[in-house]
Formats: sequence, structure tokens, C-alpha cells
Amino acid sequence: MKVAFLGMGVMGAPMAGHLAKAGHEVAVYNRTSSRAEAWTTQHGGTAAASPAAAADGAAIVFVCVGNDDDVRNVVLGDGDATGGALAGTARGSILVDHTTASATLARELDAACRERGVGFLDAPVSGGQAGAENGALTVMVGGEQSTFDTAKPVIDAYARACTLMGPAGSGQLTKMVNQICIAGLVQALSEGMNFAQKAGLDGEKVLEVISKGAAQSWQMENRGQTMLRGEFEFGFAVDWMRKDLSICLEEARGNGARLPVTALVDQFYAAVQAKGGKRWDTSSLIEVLRDRG
Amino acid sequence: MKVAFLGMGVMGAPMAGHLAKAGHEVAVYNRTSSRAEAWTTQHGGTAAASPAAAADGAAIVFVCVGNDDDVRNVVLGDGDATGGALAGTARGSILVDHTTASATLARELDAACRERGVGFLDAPVSGGQAGAENGALTVMVGGEQSTFDTAKPVIDAYARACTLMGPAGSGQLTKMVNQICIAGLVQALSEGMNFAQKAGLDGEKVLEVISKGAAQSWQMENRGQTMLRGEFEFGFAVDWMRKDLSICLEEARGNGARLPVTALVDQFYAAVQAKGGKRWDTSSLIEVLRDRG
Repeated sequence: MKVAFLGMGVMGAPMAGHLAKAGHEVAVYNRTSSRAEAWTTQHGGTAAASPAAAADGAAIVFVCVGNDDDVRNVVLGDGDATGGALAGTARGSILVDHTTASATLARELDAACRERGVGFLDAPVSGGQAGAENGALTVMVGGEQSTFDTAKPVIDAYARACTLMGPAGSGQLTKMVNQICIAGLVQALSEGMNFAQKAGLDGEKVLEVISKGAAQSWQMENRGQTMLRGEFEFGFAVDWMRKDLSICLEEARGNGARLPVTALVDQFYAAVQAKGGKRWDTSSLIEVLRDRG
Repeated sequence: MKVAFLGMGVMGAPMAGHLAKAGHEVAVYNRTSSRAEAWTTQHGGTAAASPAAAADGAAIVFVCVGNDDDVRNVVLGDGDATGGALAGTARGSILVDHTTASATLARELDAACRERGVGFLDAPVSGGQAGAENGALTVMVGGEQSTFDTAKPVIDAYARACTLMGPAGSGQLTKMVNQICIAGLVQALSEGMNFAQKAGLDGEKVLEVISKGAAQSWQMENRGQTMLRGEFEFGFAVDWMRKDLSICLEEARGNGARLPVTALVDQFYAAVQAKGGKRWDTSSLIEVLRDRG
């Protein structure tokens, strides 16, 4: 199948790689074109000069860029000299947005696609860079069943699970729930680990014991030890988490859901950024509790 | 072995039952004596008239009561007409306190026991009523290695894991870390589940998808669905959680660990109590976020 992939970042590049490996003919686009060229050197396919050129003739156009504005730029061409992907997308084809973005944007793109006879899916992922590289992402999808049914077998090239959550926007809303659940959880774990160290306990031993019970979490099992050791140069960056939480808090202004701890943790992440931790893993919340710096 | 068990509550009664089943000769005591008598009807052994009488001749005296003051009452006899257990405990025997209490109390009891040549272990448990009934508790122990080595094979009658964490008080401190990790985690899960419902998502489907990734937790897997349905008439009561968090916050005043979200969640639990949820499970935090009541 002829497909396009827009955005050759740490997520997009390996995802597009899995599509190539699955036998698809992939046209890629990246704002910094050297990255698109580097990708074709490794995987074949073609590096397109614009999103519209990449989308030309593609049955499915995938997008995985930074934020709402970046998506608008590559899809609609707003504020960008190059042609947006939608201008090059044929009637009957499908646009899949893997960017974690607002539900409002998803509904906006869904309407724009509908007007042109293009199917739309908002499909944010979780599983991080490792999940993208290993083809083991969790994909949360919003859109119509028939569009989903067509795109799913292709998405499966890099997904461990790919689930239709509801109409357009539902993928983004599900990803928001995911990030809300993580934010307060990581803060709780930070308070627990910092308390353990202040109390003079053997932190690793504490983790071993309490991870068997009601305090257990993926974060405890995968981040507890690195938090105790103060290692944060890996994983999901605080800058990205703040972008995601900003989307959650904005959506909650609309739907009326109260997020007191999520809002507070967003502020703690601002403190991590102020400490120079913009690129640190989200588990670096514990650094705000430390006495140093 | 001749042992004593003080406190025939929802935890103590089944724990003492496992000791009887393991072949130990158990003398039990309870402030409300009818409960002790009911226990002997079912398990044999003897119901003692006072903590001191129960402790008489016991190689190990177990305590599982409500809070610091209750422990002082049964062990030291403070403010109680009946004799405290320590008065009846022979040199060379061991006192094991399973109550979740302060580390200060643990150190105080350790000193009092030392004076009389009695070994002491602070040994709070996790795993709840079901864990006590199934003999599958996690026991976090503070005290000396030799005392631990003697008591562990007996404790194993109702423990899935029993770990020495450090000197006296370390069991209590480890339990505090456990409760700190749970408090913020349950709040995060509450905010996530409430947001999902406000956003019009299928909550059960959301749980199914996000529990595969970085948001996963024991609480999500075991409480997510009941939270969505508003079911709280089971589990670990809010009143008990507030007692535990009070111990954590007090300890943190001493050791300097900051607990901003733990302190906030403690206040949310106060709101649950005000809604009439004193006996509701800790997952009832989501009720504070609801619009009703």
C-alpha cells in the first residue's frame, strides 16, 4: 500500500520504519528535511518536499508531530509556505493523527477531512520511544468504525494494541485520562521514595516489599529505583508531559471535571523545568522534594 | 508454642485463627470480651481476662489493635484498669506489634521491652481483611535480626511475605511509605476516572486500554471499575486511612520530608468523611470530585 508519514521524530521515524518493513511504499516528510533523507537512506521509500507531496497518492497519511499547531501546519498548511497534507490527499483516503493533541483539534480535523471525503482518526499512542522502536505501542483511536477497520491492519505494524474508543476526539480523550492517572501517581511515588530516604530506610528493599501489594504500579516497578538514584536522563521528557497536562487541564475547563492534583503536579513539573530538567524523565518530580538546588 | 494475641478485630481474629490452625496454644484478649469468647468457641484456646493474663507464659505476644493509644493501653496498661501485657511477659519472650502505629511508639515500646529483657518487633501488615483471612499478609518488620529470626516462622502462619526492614520503627516507616504511595495514586486514578466519565468515554474500555501501559497500578486493576460504578461498601475504610496519613504527616514533620499531595489527599479524605463515607473504601476519593452532594 502507498502511505505517507509526516514527522520523523523519535516516535515517527521508527513507526514509519515498521510500515516500510511491512512492505508498504512509504513517502516521508519532515520539517527539517535532513531527517527525512536520513530515514530513506535506511529504509528506502521517498523523502517528499512538502506534506502535500508526501500525501499525493497515499491511501493513508500518518502524522506524528509535536503539538496542535504543528499538526495544523502539516495537515492544513496554516502559516506554512509548503502545502498542507490535506491538499494532496485523495477522496477515499484516510488521515491518521498519532500526535498527542487536543480533542478540539481532532474534531476540527475530522470536519475538514469530511469536507474533502477523507476519513479521519485521532490516534495518540503510549509506550514511548521503546514502544515505537519495538512496534509495541498502545494506540487509542477516535473516529468511525469503517475508517478504523481499514486503517487498523496497517497500524498493527507498530502496535501491540489498537482500540477504537468512540467518535473523533475519543482517542485524545483516552490519552488524557492516561496522563492524568500518571501525573498524580508519579508524584505519590516521589513523595514515598523521598520519605523513605529521609526516614533512613533502604529504598530498594522498601520497593521490593511494597510493590507486592496495593501500592504497586508500573511506575513503581520501572521508575522507583532510578528515582532513588536520581537518574532522569531517559524516558518521557517533562516538556512533553507539561504539553500533555496543558491539554488535559484545558479540556477539563470545558467538561467540568475537577483535576486538583493534576493541576498541582503540573506546577511541580514547572519547578522541574526551572531546575533545568526540561528533558528529564517524568519521574524527576522527586527532585522538587529534595533539599538541594 | 504458647502464644498470646491481643485484639480480636477484623484483622486480629483471622490472624490468631491461623496461629491456632498451625498448632499453637493461643490465649486471646479483646477489650470487648464477647469477641474473645466467640473466637475461642471457633478456634479453641483461651480467652484471657486481661492483656497481662493472656501474656502469662506466652513465648510471643502479638498485638493488633487500633492506634497508638490502644497499643499503649494493652501493652503498658496506661489509663486502663486491667494489667498491661508487658507486666505479664516473661524475660526472653517477644512482643510483636501488628498495629499500624507511629515509629515513635515503636521506639518507645522497644525501650520498654528492652528494660524487661523482652524482644520487640514493630510489624504492621498490608493485604487487608482478605489477606488476614487467607493468611497472605505482607508483614514489614522493624527490630533486631535474632528476634526476627525467632518470630518469623510463627508469623509465616498468616504471611505471604515477612521482611526485616531495619531497627525498631522501620516496619512502621515502611508501612508509611506504602500509604503515601497509595494516597496520591488513588487521587490520580479518581481524577482520571471522573474525567473519563465527564468526557463521555466508556470508562471500562478506557481502563482496559490504559491498564496495559505506564498508568497501570494495582489500584487501577482492583478499584477502577468499582470507582466508575460508585461502589465503596468494602475494602479499607477512609477512617483508617486518615489515621495512617496522620501518622505519615506527623513523622514527616520530624524527618523533613515534604508531602504536598499526601497532605492534600488527607484533606480530600476529610471531605469524604463529611459526605458520610467514614467506612467507605479508600477509592471513594472520586466522590469528592462528583457534582452531586
